[in-house]
Amino acid sequence: MEESSYNTVPPGFRFHPTEEELVGYYLARKVSSHKIDLDIIQEVDLYRIEPWDLQERCGKYGGGGGGQEDPTTEYYFFSYKDRKYPSGTRTNRATAAGFWKATGRDKPVLSSSSSSPASVIGMRKTLVFYRGRAPNGRKTDWIIHEYRLQSNEHAPTQ
Amino acid sequence: MEESSYNTVPPGFRFHPTEEELVGYYLARKVSSHKIDLDIIQEVDLYRIEPWDLQERCGKYGGGGGGQEDPTTEYYFFSYKDRKYPSGTRTNRATAAGFWKATGRDKPVLSSSSSSPASVIGMRKTLVFYRGRAPNGRKTDWIIHEYRLQSNEHAPTQ
Repeated sequence: MEESSYNTVPPGFRFHPTEEELVGYYLARKVSSHKIDLDIIQEVDLYRIEPWDLQERCGKYGGGGGGQEDPTTEYYFFSYKDRKYPSGTRTNRATAAGFWKATGRDKPVLSSSSSSPASVIGMRKTLVFYRGRAPNGRKTDWIIHEYRLQSNEHAPTQ
Repeated sequence: MEESSYNTVPPGFRFHPTEEELVGYYLARKVSSHKIDLDIIQEVDLYRIEPWDLQERCGKYGGGGGGQEDPTTEYYFFSYKDRKYPSGTRTNRATAAGFWKATGRDKPVLSSSSSSPASVIGMRKTLVFYRGRAPNGRKTDWIIHEYRLQSNEHAPTQ
């Protein structure tokens, strides 16, 4: 199959992906280094950037569009996890001004393919930004939904 | 300038046009028979179709998308005005099951071009669907926003 390629989209289109599209298309292709139709999701180093500086990096197609009321501004980006220690699994979620702290439970992202039963294709973690240094810090209104692919790390190699 | 052409849009994009895009791009191009990048807005004969039958004609990219809550389903279409009498200016807004009745005042659609002061590029009329026959009829929840270009009918021909 031939792949299409885009530089932009026609007037009136806004990037309002479903979670399934984010995980099943954009994240899956990013992780596997497959071509993404339109390079809409930028890569940022989340721990070298403050939330209020994301706009200039990720602002192109996001935000509310159309006739809708959309008080929330949303940005989409890819970021690598930063390890606190080379051998550790604890991730460093601090920026210069504060830190991201997980809240609530992780939530599965389901595939809604009509040809097969729903399956878990990824997980969503929600994090809140606190100004200051852990374990102190002042909670802000900034939140991130961090998506990851459903891990196959322990699956047998093909 | 070369024009782009699209058959579809990348995953995650939804059609949520601003009023300025609807009028200044889609309607203006339709009226002047200019090419529209992606043929997303279908032509329907509004007075030969009931509102609840619009979905199958106009459903492709509309509706709520992404992670947003969007209880309203919206459809976009082009329709010609139907004249009640060949010489008249009163339009016939009846379907088989009911009729569309204007409500409120028409509202200007403004151009937000940053290079010039805002100008009126079109007008929006709101109509409500009533079941039955005028002047009776039972009001429904169906509404249409009918956009027209700012009329230049009486302007001198160039």
